[in-house]
Amino acid sequence: MTPAELDAADPLAALRDRYVGADSGLVYFDGNSLGRPLRVTGERLREFVTEEWGGRLIRGWDERWYELPLTLGDRLGEVGLGAEPGQVFVGDSTTVLLYKLIRAAVDAAPEGRDELVIDTDNFPTDRYLVTAIAAERGMQVRWIDVRRDSGVTADLLADAVGERTALVVLSHVAYRSAYLADGPELTRIVHDAGALILWDLCHSAGAVEVALDAWGADLAVGCSYKYLNAGPGAPAFGYVAARHLGRLRQPITGWMGHADPFLMGPEWKPSPGVRAFISGTPPITGMLPLLDQLDVVEEAGMAAIREKSIALTEFAIELTDTELAPYGVTLASPRDPAERGGHVTLNHPRMREVTEVLWRQDVIPDYRDPEGLRLGLSPLSTSFDEVARGFEAIKAALA
Amino acid sequence: MTPAELDAADPLAALRDRYVGADSGLVYFDGNSLGRPLRVTGERLREFVTEEWGGRLIRGWDERWYELPLTLGDRLGEVGLGAEPGQVFVGDSTTVLLYKLIRAAVDAAPEGRDELVIDTDNFPTDRYLVTAIAAERGMQVRWIDVRRDSGVTADLLADAVGERTALVVLSHVAYRSAYLADGPELTRIVHDAGALILWDLCHSAGAVEVALDAWGADLAVGCSYKYLNAGPGAPAFGYVAARHLGRLRQPITGWMGHADPFLMGPEWKPSPGVRAFISGTPPITGMLPLLDQLDVVEEAGMAAIREKSIALTEFAIELTDTELAPYGVTLASPRDPAERGGHVTLNHPRMREVTEVLWRQDVIPDYRDPEGLRLGLSPLSTSFDEVARGFEAIKAALA
Repeated sequence: MTPAELDAADPLAALRDRYVGADSGLVYFDGNSLGRPLRVTGERLREFVTEEWGGRLIRGWDERWYELPLTLGDRLGEVGLGAEPGQVFVGDSTTVLLYKLIRAAVDAAPEGRDELVIDTDNFPTDRYLVTAIAAERGMQVRWIDVRRDSGVTADLLADAVGERTALVVLSHVAYRSAYLADGPELTRIVHDAGALILWDLCHSAGAVEVALDAWGADLAVGCSYKYLNAGPGAPAFGYVAARHLGRLRQPITGWMGHADPFLMGPEWKPSPGVRAFISGTPPITGMLPLLDQLDVVEEAGMAAIREKSIALTEFAIELTDTELAPYGVTLASPRDPAERGGHVTLNHPRMREVTEVLWRQDVIPDYRDPEGLRLGLSPLSTSFDEVARGFEAIKAALA
Repeated sequence: MTPAELDAADPLAALRDRYVGADSGLVYFDGNSLGRPLRVTGERLREFVTEEWGGRLIRGWDERWYELPLTLGDRLGEVGLGAEPGQVFVGDSTTVLLYKLIRAAVDAAPEGRDELVIDTDNFPTDRYLVTAIAAERGMQVRWIDVRRDSGVTADLLADAVGERTALVVLSHVAYRSAYLADGPELTRIVHDAGALILWDLCHSAGAVEVALDAWGADLAVGCSYKYLNAGPGAPAFGYVAARHLGRLRQPITGWMGHADPFLMGPEWKPSPGVRAFISGTPPITGMLPLLDQLDVVEEAGMAAIREKSIALTEFAIELTDTELAPYGVTLASPRDPAERGGHVTLNHPRMREVTEVLWRQDVIPDYRDPEGLRLGLSPLSTSFDEVARGFEAIKAALA
């Protein structure tokens, strides 16, 4: 099919117009670094300042904001994560939430479980924190070596876990290769070894179907500024399975995670619920754009979003094979859509220069060392025509 | 002088109109919990969504956002904190920054320095974190007992510090009593004992003059949503004195504090500068309102802001003595303006009910257990007439 035919057949095509600049001519292949804003979000923020913050002032905390990290978390859990209410919260950065949840898991690890397991191509922050926390707590890191165009398979994981494993930290979709890990199967392998698993959902939330409760996941974190279009540095989200609430404890014990914050008593007494994982005053302004995006995600449905995401990446791979392979470009992402998330990485020794050329032409992919052109095809805001135009530009840059 | 005469003589009176709702009739005595927004801020956020986020997309990181935590920090340092560039950063919540900076100090403490010093009436989060970190690191907490209408004096501090002290955590302005600690003198006492000091500036930044470099402070944190009017849950700021950069290390080692974030290499190598104290992707949207407020703070000047702040609290105390003392109300804040920050707390056994009555009449103070009515008089957005109207309502509620 031609790009025009693919767009005509796309049941989600009408939603594109709701995003700022989707019709601007710019080719945007970086929705997995920073998603486009919804048009309604600008006015929502203006109104928030003048009406809710400016009008309700401190009363806004009682009326909505105090619960917002949890109500927004519940809604995200329902619409995008497959999580029942009371397990998801929004706030802090992904890095801070990783620190809090990894610490919560390792601080509660049984005697003798002194290993943290992570793969060598996980996102840098995940690797840095696992390394730092292991050093801090006198534990070991067990590294899973992965191929850069793949990720953590069941076999690799099964070889790495055992009776010394405390926690496994895995990305659901690998930030470089887009390898889509098998959520339920890997969770089962970790549990069979008697350990806990923390899923990093940064590159999957909003693009790939996630079912944390059904997988039996223990912990998860993710960011809202990629496929959840909540804006630069928007707050992250965390998930703690209901069975761990009241049992796992995080170390950054601020007043907002207290069972009764305004008691202001001498001792920190954790909230019995997932609130205990909140630390300081929640970042309300930064949370608001996510509300708008969740409306659209719910309207479209995650199954349809995933279907379009697959169609976009399949189309990109088809164009790679026909248009770019002759120039020596190779696919650094899985070919099987069941093993691939919402982006595609293409390798070529000159991709750094290609990226610079493309940016000057308003074609915006991401570059990732050593030679990867990473194309993040945000399903709700990207058209097949946009993909086709982008590939023409990549081809011209290589030629 | 009458309230009208006081307002007429106020050199900052014209700035009030720049704040949303300052002319609404509502009496707002809670600017030290959540400051009013500036009128320009709503439009700034709308424009940010459509133009900068929506138009520049991922390019915004290179163009402005990546450096914003530091450029905004430098500007805050210059306008409000008395800090030379390269020492202040913006991001995370106050709670998270307290955790990171307390950990940085205690993890570097010399052998034998195993005590953390804090006062019994410091803000709950500060106390909870000092307690939790001491337990985590096998250290002791040494508590300074303070009177609830006062704070940490030089004598009290000198008795508490010694050769076992690693770090002292003090609020510059006490959240309940408004006691204004002597920045340079207390810093000197701590240094004479060979320890470090961390100043919590939550209740002073934007209302009271702060001179971190001149005091010789080691570390500081503060929030931007009180007298800095940056919105509910706006990011906090941290200060690390230049002499400690490269020496102190914080534990939440994310990619944004790395010397070269996009290298994405195997090891975390801290940035040589204050960037090393940043963890995850900075909360850009939430930072923007602070830019607007800093423009106004610079225009007014911190000396004039402090002068008006004193005039407002003096007026409130005068009205307390003449109008409320007959009902048994007592002042729970220092009488000497040199020892008082930007708010005033009034005690009475019925203050909880009084607060409820006032809120129903659009007079908005804060209540703090056990019997305190806390009046936060934000200098730039509060008029003397507003104070007078508020006290009439308090008097009527007590009568």
